[in-house]
Amino acid sequence: MLSDIEIAQQNKMEKIQVIADKCGLTPDDIEQYGHYKAKISFDAIKRLDSKKDGKLVLVTAITPTPAGEGKSTTTIGLVQALNKIGKNAIAALREPSLGPVFGIKGGAAGGGYAQVVPMDDINLHFTGDMHAITAANNLLSAMIDNHIHQGNELQIDLRQISWTRVLDMNDRALRNVTVAMGGKVCGFPREDHFMITVASEIMAILCLATDLEDLKARFGRIVIGPNLKGEPVYVHQLGCEGAMALLMKDAIKPNLVQTLEHTPAIVHGGPFANIAHGCNSVVATKLGLKLGDIVVTEAGFGADLGAEKFLDIKCRYGDIFPNAVVIVATLRALKMHGGVSKQELNTENVEAVTKGFSNLCKAIENMRFFGVPVMVAINKFVTDTDAEIAELTRLCNDYGVPVELNECWEKGGEGGIDMAKRVVELVEGSEPTPKFVYELTDSVEEKVDKIVRTIYGGDGVTFGAKAKKQIAQLKEWGLDNLPVCMAKTQYSLSDNPALLGAPTGFTINVTDIRVANGAGFLVCRTGDVMVMPGLPKRPAALNMDIDADGTIIGLF
Amino acid sequence: MLSDIEIAQQNKMEKIQVIADKCGLTPDDIEQYGHYKAKISFDAIKRLDSKKDGKLVLVTAITPTPAGEGKSTTTIGLVQALNKIGKNAIAALREPSLGPVFGIKGGAAGGGYAQVVPMDDINLHFTGDMHAITAANNLLSAMIDNHIHQGNELQIDLRQISWTRVLDMNDRALRNVTVAMGGKVCGFPREDHFMITVASEIMAILCLATDLEDLKARFGRIVIGPNLKGEPVYVHQLGCEGAMALLMKDAIKPNLVQTLEHTPAIVHGGPFANIAHGCNSVVATKLGLKLGDIVVTEAGFGADLGAEKFLDIKCRYGDIFPNAVVIVATLRALKMHGGVSKQELNTENVEAVTKGFSNLCKAIENMRFFGVPVMVAINKFVTDTDAEIAELTRLCNDYGVPVELNECWEKGGEGGIDMAKRVVELVEGSEPTPKFVYELTDSVEEKVDKIVRTIYGGDGVTFGAKAKKQIAQLKEWGLDNLPVCMAKTQYSLSDNPALLGAPTGFTINVTDIRVANGAGFLVCRTGDVMVMPGLPKRPAALNMDIDADGTIIGLF
Repeated sequence: MLSDIEIAQQNKMEKIQVIADKCGLTPDDIEQYGHYKAKISFDAIKRLDSKKDGKLVLVTAITPTPAGEGKSTTTIGLVQALNKIGKNAIAALREPSLGPVFGIKGGAAGGGYAQVVPMDDINLHFTGDMHAITAANNLLSAMIDNHIHQGNELQIDLRQISWTRVLDMNDRALRNVTVAMGGKVCGFPREDHFMITVASEIMAILCLATDLEDLKARFGRIVIGPNLKGEPVYVHQLGCEGAMALLMKDAIKPNLVQTLEHTPAIVHGGPFANIAHGCNSVVATKLGLKLGDIVVTEAGFGADLGAEKFLDIKCRYGDIFPNAVVIVATLRALKMHGGVSKQELNTENVEAVTKGFSNLCKAIENMRFFGVPVMVAINKFVTDTDAEIAELTRLCNDYGVPVELNECWEKGGEGGIDMAKRVVELVEGSEPTPKFVYELTDSVEEKVDKIVRTIYGGDGVTFGAKAKKQIAQLKEWGLDNLPVCMAKTQYSLSDNPALLGAPTGFTINVTDIRVANGAGFLVCRTGDVMVMPGLPKRPAALNMDIDADGTIIGLF
Repeated sequence: MLSDIEIAQQNKMEKIQVIADKCGLTPDDIEQYGHYKAKISFDAIKRLDSKKDGKLVLVTAITPTPAGEGKSTTTIGLVQALNKIGKNAIAALREPSLGPVFGIKGGAAGGGYAQVVPMDDINLHFTGDMHAITAANNLLSAMIDNHIHQGNELQIDLRQISWTRVLDMNDRALRNVTVAMGGKVCGFPREDHFMITVASEIMAILCLATDLEDLKARFGRIVIGPNLKGEPVYVHQLGCEGAMALLMKDAIKPNLVQTLEHTPAIVHGGPFANIAHGCNSVVATKLGLKLGDIVVTEAGFGADLGAEKFLDIKCRYGDIFPNAVVIVATLRALKMHGGVSKQELNTENVEAVTKGFSNLCKAIENMRFFGVPVMVAINKFVTDTDAEIAELTRLCNDYGVPVELNECWEKGGEGGIDMAKRVVELVEGSEPTPKFVYELTDSVEEKVDKIVRTIYGGDGVTFGAKAKKQIAQLKEWGLDNLPVCMAKTQYSLSDNPALLGAPTGFTINVTDIRVANGAGFLVCRTGDVMVMPGLPKRPAALNMDIDADGTIIGLF
């Protein structure tokens, strides 16, 4: 069996201008980054503005398990399949973070015969967006510490700075640091933290901003922490939002690449789905709707996290709404939700499928809540048995939800023809009226309560002492009328990762609420949220190499 | 008077393929990064290998003063002028660091009508080389801390790790940090430091490596510090040199841009001239020699630092040698060397010129030591008087060194015609035999002593207690047979920045000697060396902006 990088290397890519041609972009509309990547100019975006929008399909998934789901693979495979049946379909994907590439996870450009390429570049520096975010984020940090060092005119409270530095690296040693040690010439010592770049508010802003002007305005609105009087300190008071926007002048332009079957894919923005909203950029998705008849996009983690935030945050800000939702499930993952351990997954267990369906069921219900046509895509593994597939098909049929097999990992677009046809049926004539779980005018408490009851299936929410204080402060600051961005474990509908399936009778406890005022949401943390991963005992970096003629080994 | 960015914005650039054509590069030889930047492929480099080399011209300068010299401006202006008189000349320049752009210094892509463009991109993220270096550097840091955290099989002594993290930002708060705070899951706490990216050994390696294979081998040879037994720990023992090289697969390819007069310029690599050797990459310079009949390159700081290291380190490793050297001087700077304060520079002072000539004189002597034809280029300022210019011309004539005015800042290539003609005279028939200040087999003490006596004009060298210990350790490790990279103040030929002109009777005191074994040199520090700049009271970032249509303001 070939590895992902081997499959990608064997694929003969088209020059990026050929791909651009396919979606009506001229040589002047794009800026090439090597022969196979390009940025799409804002002039092109403006020119296309009057064009009619295509249909939007959201790919989400059941609650993730260690068995894997394959959301990106399904998204890419679906687009390949849609093109195979004659549709002008475009993928709008998140760009992967560099850090995890060297850790356990490896790359994030799809898998098997459903990948976006050049997968090596996409997984490494790509067109430099992540690095631009890192630079803009850390310029702000340097400006904050310099402001304090030079006299602290704004009276920033250095004990309470919430803005942290970032690096696109899995590096646990940077989670908690002391900076500005070394005496007078080095500034005022304080505690600080590094997050991984994709967890930065800058990334969330990139993904929600509609253009360069909006980007800069959002940078200006960022709250970096309180001053000594307890008032919020905004970036526009420091005056560096212009320099930050300048650093992001190219990063805000969407990136064009291709799938293994040479269909266009826009890969742009990739915020964490825990501390941020976990979807690709509004700019890219909206551009896709101008370039394609069908745009397929994805949201991070399961339907409770990524899809809820896609709908309540991204769609609300971006003035878009999906015409259909595809929920990805694997029999292996459903069996885990049905109580099977990872070691036993290769043994047939129809009963576990029946039991684990409860999780898929809740995902379907959740997506139906938003009034969008839904289907299930079974991402097929070789270990799946006919009886298991039949059982899942029966359960879906009984539940009145269309279900199709997805064999794109193994067969590329050819393996997703039925799924593609079903998607076409769903989107035709689908014009759902946008619906949200909560209103922006609801109190913070109400917003979270509605998400917990409607989406998670829980009995409500409690707020820790610290969170209560923070809500009071947000009200005082007049910053509470924002959407909430839930930061919850991705491994359960509840806030306890051990509760698989569709747990009931639980409450969610919010421990910490911070405003990401530039992005325009309130991050509600429920327990620990990992914002800087570490490296494992044997990092993937150890398997990687590049030989003298540039051939890459061990990138997956 | 227009600012640099305004001049650059008014210039109508050629598409980069047009520039590539001018030096015989096909569309397949280059990888475009936008319409005006490209990377040159190693396939092209290999194809050109059998071609005859052009002539190499090194631009260096007198000892820098706050009055400014204009080395990059002269280099670019000279290339423009050489093209004006019908020569196929190419500039091979360093790429600027992002950090200082937001501080005091601003960009570093030349000035006035002698710039490389697109100056905004070159000064910002360019083609991502700096970010790739940052990533490779910090991957190694993460691997070191992870190795210790996971059991420390190599017994790395966490009290003595010499490898530091880097960021391409002026950020004094990162000079001295404590990392891995926060308990068991965050690793073993230790003291660490961030340098600015260009000070990294990775940058020095990029600039000295001959190809990807050599790059990887050099990464493997890096010493990150001693183990608990006092033995050196190499990167190849950690096993991540392959992943680091993978991160640098594009960064090692030279970048092609253009001057304001649409002549080709290669801008690649930019190590600090204090802690590293301060020259652009060997790969770029050697490629330039294949593409152009004359290649003009520069070295950081004055002739005592940049030029000495260019010759003793870069030329030695790269198997190249200049056919001529241009020493840049300004009357303002010579007057400062002659004892005039910065405030009095606008007043005519012929006597100060005569007195300050001592510094230029020493630079000429030094370059003559290497057996290379030398000329002086007077970078003209509006405040220079005819009498001052006449005096400097007389002094040079008496000294037997050709001298020409350089008005390229104001007039572009047209302002450097005489200088260009003189350069052509110098390089014709010039085939100097490479000569170095010291032999690699000399002891560390002898090497430094020879540099101090021959180049600085001092009476010898002393070594502090720490440096003596370090030399003993390097001998024990068998790593003392390397060139020395002097880290000395750039403001004086001595190690005392207050001694201008050509001081005598001084000794240099070396306080610290570290091996950069991947780069292949020993860094000898004489006093404090700034490896992480800070931001000033009013950072340049505050003047920067980008408006809704992408027009950039305040970048200079």
